[in-house]
Amino acid sequence: MAKLRFKIAMSLDGFTAGPAQSRKNPLGVGGNRLHDWAIALAAWRAMHGLKGGAVNESTPVVEEQLANIGATIMGRNMFGGHPGPWDRKEPWNGWWGANPPFHHPVFVLTHHPRPTLVLEGGNSFTFVTDGIKAALEQARRAAGEKDVSLAGGAKAAQQYLNAGLVDEMEISLVPALLGAGERLFDGGRDLGGLRPVRTVAAADVTHLKFARRRTG
Amino acid sequence: MAKLRFKIAMSLDGFTAGPAQSRKNPLGVGGNRLHDWAIALAAWRAMHGLKGGAVNESTPVVEEQLANIGATIMGRNMFGGHPGPWDRKEPWNGWWGANPPFHHPVFVLTHHPRPTLVLEGGNSFTFVTDGIKAALEQARRAAGEKDVSLAGGAKAAQQYLNAGLVDEMEISLVPALLGAGERLFDGGRDLGGLRPVRTVAAADVTHLKFARRRTG
Repeated sequence: MAKLRFKIAMSLDGFTAGPAQSRKNPLGVGGNRLHDWAIALAAWRAMHGLKGGAVNESTPVVEEQLANIGATIMGRNMFGGHPGPWDRKEPWNGWWGANPPFHHPVFVLTHHPRPTLVLEGGNSFTFVTDGIKAALEQARRAAGEKDVSLAGGAKAAQQYLNAGLVDEMEISLVPALLGAGERLFDGGRDLGGLRPVRTVAAADVTHLKFARRRTG
Repeated sequence: MAKLRFKIAMSLDGFTAGPAQSRKNPLGVGGNRLHDWAIALAAWRAMHGLKGGAVNESTPVVEEQLANIGATIMGRNMFGGHPGPWDRKEPWNGWWGANPPFHHPVFVLTHHPRPTLVLEGGNSFTFVTDGIKAALEQARRAAGEKDVSLAGGAKAAQQYLNAGLVDEMEISLVPALLGAGERLFDGGRDLGGLRPVRTVAAADVTHLKFARRRTG
């Protein structure tokens, strides 16, 4: 069965976004700092239609993360913030622009129904109101033979981790402090059956990969 | 001048000790898990008078940490818990036993005066009541040409980090969750002038070393 693969960047003090997230500053105060290492890479820039960039120890990590993904799941906040019902007159199309970088179906966890949003470049956002398992089933169907990416944010990830539904997790640990914001791990004591399988150390980030302990 | 070198083990969710620390369980619930990687090492066992043990990627890291240390600083809680004035009738001699593993002068940060405690094996505990700078000065004098080790816990480390007094920091990141306990980084946004200088990945722990940015 297609794997559910979760990747996220986290600060040394455990935050995946800074405080005071807003439309202008979707990653919160200081949150962009978590992605500097990625944005510098040629592999990341190519995905966003940009030229140039670095090749370093992080390159194979990012290439692996981007490969063989057929659908993405994300939380409402990661799609476009604003808790509560969608604005029917002027529904916001999220933080991802007219041509988001996914190029496959994206499933958004929300309590508030909304018709599927189709954007350029093979991107669609389907709003799932019946829970994380339903979203995973829909994403797996859409992904076909490929895997499903769990993009975040922290709350969506916690739900999937606690339910033991994540097959692979990669934390890109950035050696900086945010001081406040959204914590990835907030009170849980187990990693939902995941165990460390490999670590890649780059100069500006450390990639910690975990995978499910397979039984039988 | 002798460096102040801080080393500590931290869980993936940012804790350096578990909840409910007690005499019976000085590292709190689950806290021993943070040190499994070290206790397995021949280098660590030799320091504690034990034979056998493993040699792996962590070995040179621990050898470097133990080398050239002439004095240690620690917080009251790390010496022996129990906030408040010392029991004069039956003062506890701490968690470290009759022959602690330091074999050099240790300086304990406390608000409550107490005569220096001399134990076996060249160990002494001097109780410093006039602040972190005074403790550092005393420790540097005692260390002579050697460096000073900052052993923790989290609160003592935060004070030295925030004051920009730490020259080197090594976080041994353990890929497990404690869920609660003592956080190393709790609201601060800078690393007191420290920047990452090298990462060592072992199978069961990742060592993240930081050093002061020297100017001039």
